[in-house]
Amino acid sequence: MAKQKKPQRPKAQTPKGFRDYFGAEVAQRTDMLRTIAGVYHRYGFEALESAAVETVEALGKFLPDVDRPNEGVFAWQEEDENDNGDWLALRYDLTAPLARVFAQHRNDLPTPYRRFAMGPVWRNEKPGPGRFRQFYQCDADTVGSGNVAADAEICAMLADTLEAVGIDRGDYVVRINNRKVLNGVLEVMGLFDDDQRANVLRTIDKFDKVGESGVRELLGKGRLDASGAYIDGVGLSDAQAEPVVAFLTSKSDTTEGTLANLRAAIGDSEVGAKGVDELQTMADLLAAGGYGPDRIVIDPSVVRGLGYYTGPVFEAELTFEIKDEKGRPRSFGSVAGGGRYDDLVKRFTGQEVPATGVSIGVDRLLAALHMKGRLNMDTTGPVVVTVMDRDRMADYQAIVSELRNAGIRAEVYLGNPKSFGNQLKYADQRNSPIAIIQGGDELAAGTLQVKDLILGAKIAETASQEEWSERPQQFEIPRADLVSRIKALLDEQNQ
Amino acid sequence: MAKQKKPQRPKAQTPKGFRDYFGAEVAQRTDMLRTIAGVYHRYGFEALESAAVETVEALGKFLPDVDRPNEGVFAWQEEDENDNGDWLALRYDLTAPLARVFAQHRNDLPTPYRRFAMGPVWRNEKPGPGRFRQFYQCDADTVGSGNVAADAEICAMLADTLEAVGIDRGDYVVRINNRKVLNGVLEVMGLFDDDQRANVLRTIDKFDKVGESGVRELLGKGRLDASGAYIDGVGLSDAQAEPVVAFLTSKSDTTEGTLANLRAAIGDSEVGAKGVDELQTMADLLAAGGYGPDRIVIDPSVVRGLGYYTGPVFEAELTFEIKDEKGRPRSFGSVAGGGRYDDLVKRFTGQEVPATGVSIGVDRLLAALHMKGRLNMDTTGPVVVTVMDRDRMADYQAIVSELRNAGIRAEVYLGNPKSFGNQLKYADQRNSPIAIIQGGDELAAGTLQVKDLILGAKIAETASQEEWSERPQQFEIPRADLVSRIKALLDEQNQ
Repeated sequence: MAKQKKPQRPKAQTPKGFRDYFGAEVAQRTDMLRTIAGVYHRYGFEALESAAVETVEALGKFLPDVDRPNEGVFAWQEEDENDNGDWLALRYDLTAPLARVFAQHRNDLPTPYRRFAMGPVWRNEKPGPGRFRQFYQCDADTVGSGNVAADAEICAMLADTLEAVGIDRGDYVVRINNRKVLNGVLEVMGLFDDDQRANVLRTIDKFDKVGESGVRELLGKGRLDASGAYIDGVGLSDAQAEPVVAFLTSKSDTTEGTLANLRAAIGDSEVGAKGVDELQTMADLLAAGGYGPDRIVIDPSVVRGLGYYTGPVFEAELTFEIKDEKGRPRSFGSVAGGGRYDDLVKRFTGQEVPATGVSIGVDRLLAALHMKGRLNMDTTGPVVVTVMDRDRMADYQAIVSELRNAGIRAEVYLGNPKSFGNQLKYADQRNSPIAIIQGGDELAAGTLQVKDLILGAKIAETASQEEWSERPQQFEIPRADLVSRIKALLDEQNQ
Repeated sequence: MAKQKKPQRPKAQTPKGFRDYFGAEVAQRTDMLRTIAGVYHRYGFEALESAAVETVEALGKFLPDVDRPNEGVFAWQEEDENDNGDWLALRYDLTAPLARVFAQHRNDLPTPYRRFAMGPVWRNEKPGPGRFRQFYQCDADTVGSGNVAADAEICAMLADTLEAVGIDRGDYVVRINNRKVLNGVLEVMGLFDDDQRANVLRTIDKFDKVGESGVRELLGKGRLDASGAYIDGVGLSDAQAEPVVAFLTSKSDTTEGTLANLRAAIGDSEVGAKGVDELQTMADLLAAGGYGPDRIVIDPSVVRGLGYYTGPVFEAELTFEIKDEKGRPRSFGSVAGGGRYDDLVKRFTGQEVPATGVSIGVDRLLAALHMKGRLNMDTTGPVVVTVMDRDRMADYQAIVSELRNAGIRAEVYLGNPKSFGNQLKYADQRNSPIAIIQGGDELAAGTLQVKDLILGAKIAETASQEEWSERPQQFEIPRADLVSRIKALLDEQNQ
């Protein structure tokens, strides 16, 4: 018989690309989601929470020629007797489930259907620093309206949302572009070949990185990369490439100027004219709502998503400066994006249903607020009631209950009470503002010792007690005054 | 060449056992979780949010002799070049991830570690009516304290939580039992054989269903089932079975009485005496905190979980009556349960770490509050601004923006405005309280028409306008008074 191996202990590790969130991090995100939900609700959007799991078929990621669904999602096959169960997967965004929900419930839902959704999504991708395989999204979409008033509304809501969570006006801008304008430009160029169009789209997507001259090179013969590699160009003549460059650089100081430049760039293209008209209408609607170009601006250099969307495209950028990993200043960048996509539900029903929506990158927005010092970083721990006599737990419990009933965050020390030093170390680790002590002397006298741990930390920091000499680090109070005195001290500490 | 098949459309369906939550359902759960988090926080517990995905190894569900992890969890294998990737799975509860988190981060976490967690968990089980494969749990646990003060605290917190979410005192009871008392009983019976002990435990678990006489039969020779089947008994003599029955039925009118009965049931068993002492200590601590037997009571008939836990066991039951599916009255039943389990972290580190905790069944608690009419059922939709003239969207947009800026939930109709009837139908489907109308006449006069849809619905319901004759169903207001008049009408409707 083979020797029985000692069972190995499991590793206490999150799977690669996943992480845990503790304490204030959780509270901050919850608060932010609540604030965002409040704005979305005020705009008439209704909450929707679908399950994390969808059929791969409904998600639309199933490749018929492979045994497993393609990479990018976490998927598994349901077990059934014939080994023929459905493939299920974790949702990779909140839009694909919306399409399924709308198709499934369309007879019970109002049209247009304004819905918001918030929650984690999962991507089966290679994780990297700061790149996780589970992260939060916070979406709002309007399904069933082809009117660009729906797009304008979402841009206004995005601006309101950013201000509501603590981004000052002036520290953000919502930029709008329109895919139809680009289609007009391609028409004017005489580009009807799908491959060539795709090549031009890919080049446009690099505008952020390579700039105007880079795009000119890439549309023409090609370009020597920073790494020394030569990137083949699309092979257009300078004249042919010109409308693309004109489109990308048509932003002017005024909305009117930008729109005029765009009209010039699309020549007599009908679809291009429709795109410019849509931008004009959105600008008018937004102006009527009080959203000027200081908050929401037409900017044809927004290219992200142009390949994916079918009409208006928008992106929220935080404009304040941060330092990158090399200490160089740069603007914080994008925290939300969206646009119009008109064949959301068609896969399911055959019916074309116009839709538009936005997705906020919750974790990036939290990081931005963190950098701006705008997060409520209250990591104050509970008041800790220490245990001087383990036979008197009931007395300590009574103290804690009184505090809690008065709304004060409090706890009794539940570890081994033998070492008082360990109890104070624990209070320190919990970031407790106050420790309460009652030994035999205090019990006899009907009093409590109160230790001001915030003051204690300050004195330890400055290594000088002088400037705090008027405030005692520890003092005695009557047991009967517990709640009022602790409340007063907490107030004093918070000033 | 084979004839190309038309691609089949995907089915718009949630996977079996999953469901969507809409509007008020989502808001009600969010509100409840927030209230619970508030109580947990006040008790000194810290939020923890781990990912939905864990390694199967960490979850402890991996069977080495099969290719796939056992049923009960949704699991899949990570792809890697050698087809040897980790098995991952969706968490099936919030306790297994806590064990992994504590083992992984134990050097950075305070001990004792009080943490709460809320979120969905997944079970790969056969779904049934009202039984879903994704549902919410809301847990609080104290890791690293062997003191029953930790258990008492969790019971007090559970009582406070139930009251905070809207269950009246008197409509619930938290029942406490202790596994050690049962162990003492088994000792007194002279039962040391593991199989026989397991049989007795299984019988005890049926106490809820078969009552005292049923348990007597099952401990003895056996019992004729209601279905006519004969269930074999454990084969104990009446005398041997007596301590079990004494244990299960030892509840008295007073805590003292119950404890005395238990002391009698455990005879001179040391572990049994320790269990009774623990119950005594918990009762004393709870009394000191103001939690009398009207809220938290020692009840040896609580058997759920006795097999799983190692010390105190508790269960919260809602005591008010509801009608079951056949219309018979019964009490609502359990909404939360928990207890002490002392080898949580041992699997990972080899170290024994005592822990105790509770899990609230959020969906059941929501259902209870729903039955009691205690949920904020505000399903009021937004004020709907109708579109009389599609060229004046900017005007309607301005009206909506004014309302939203004043904190009023409002939206402009974004569907095809051709049919005014459709717009009112939409407002009705949205449960809108008010529709606002501005045609050419109103524009010229600088006014708006306001339609009171709540009143309209009431009149339609009673089919008589008389009793409402003093309140007009539709009236005109100056455009300049928009916000104040709409606010006033909403207030009136809410009275």
